[in-house]
Amino acid sequence: NIKSNQDEEENGPSSSNEDVKFDYPDIKYEFLDNTADVQIHAWGDSLEESFEQVVMGMFGYMTDIEGIENRDMKQIDIRAEGDLQNLLYKFLSEWLEIYGTEDYFVARKIEIILFDRNELRIIARGYGETFDLSRHTQGTEVKAITYSNMQIHEEASTHDVYVIVDI
Amino acid sequence: NIKSNQDEEENGPSSSNEDVKFDYPDIKYEFLDNTADVQIHAWGDSLEESFEQVVMGMFGYMTDIEGIENRDMKQIDIRAEGDLQNLLYKFLSEWLEIYGTEDYFVARKIEIILFDRNELRIIARGYGETFDLSRHTQGTEVKAITYSNMQIHEEASTHDVYVIVDI
Repeated sequence: NIKSNQDEEENGPSSSNEDVKFDYPDIKYEFLDNTADVQIHAWGDSLEESFEQVVMGMFGYMTDIEGIENRDMKQIDIRAEGDLQNLLYKFLSEWLEIYGTEDYFVARKIEIILFDRNELRIIARGYGETFDLSRHTQGTEVKAITYSNMQIHEEASTHDVYVIVDI
Repeated sequence: NIKSNQDEEENGPSSSNEDVKFDYPDIKYEFLDNTADVQIHAWGDSLEESFEQVVMGMFGYMTDIEGIENRDMKQIDIRAEGDLQNLLYKFLSEWLEIYGTEDYFVARKIEIILFDRNELRIIARGYGETFDLSRHTQGTEVKAITYSNMQIHEEASTHDVYVIVDI
C-alpha cells in the first residue's frame, strides 16, 4: 500500500496513535439518490405579476438578482395544454431552457405582454444578461421545474404561487 | 427608485430595448423549505466494517477522503437503545458531533474496537485531522443523520447499510 507507506514516512507516528500500523481502508461506500429542491413562493397584484415574480425568484436563486444588469432582452411565446399549472410549468421551463441554451441568460425583470387564460398562452420579455461569474454571485443552479405541490391561488388578493424546483 | 435610475445612467439603453423605460420590479418572492439529502450505501465483510465504512462515506462526502492525513485520533464510546438502527444513528451522529465541536475533525479511517450487539454499545477510533480548506477539497457538509429509509442488511454477505443524511 503505497499511500499509507508514504504517509507514515512523511508524517511519522503521532503521539496519539504511535502504536498504529497505518493502513488506509479500501473504499466500500457510494453515494446514491442525491435529491435537493427548494420551494419558491411568489405573489403579486395580479396573477400575471405572480408569474413574473416566480421567474425572477428562479433566477434570484441562481445569483443575486441585484447584480444583473439590463443588457439584453429575450422574448418568449409559449402555449400550454389543460390548465394554469401546465402554463406555469411551461413558462418557467422556457426561461430555464433559455438559461441553458442561450449563453446562461438570467433576467432581473420579466414582463408579460400577453396572458391569455383561454388559449393558455403567454408572450413575455425578460431583461437581463449573460450570467458571468466574474461579476455575479454564485447561487445554486436550478436544474428542473416540478409539479410537486404546485399551487396557484388565483382567488387570493395576493395571487400566491408556489413552485418546487430541483436544484 | 434610486437603483433603476442609477442603472439607467450607468448603462444607458441597449439596442435591444431602447424603448423601455427601465424600472426594476419590487421583489415579491421568497424561498421556502429548502431540502437536500443524499443516501450513503456502505458494505463490508462484517457489519462492523459496514458501520466503519458508512462513517468514512459521511466524511468522504464532506471532502475528498484521500486528502485526509493521519495526524490525530479520536475515540468514542456510545450506547444505543432498542435496536441496531438506533445504534447506527447514534454512531454516525457522534462522529458528526465531533466534527462540529472538535475543530472540524474528519476521519479517513474508522476502527471499531468493541461492537456489542447485546448491550448496543460501540467503542471506536477515528484517524484523521482537522478539516482545512487550504489543503482539503470542499465537499458538501452533512447537517444531520436521518432514520429515513435506513436499512441494515445484516444477513447479506456484504452487510449492506443505507443511511440518508441531510446536507
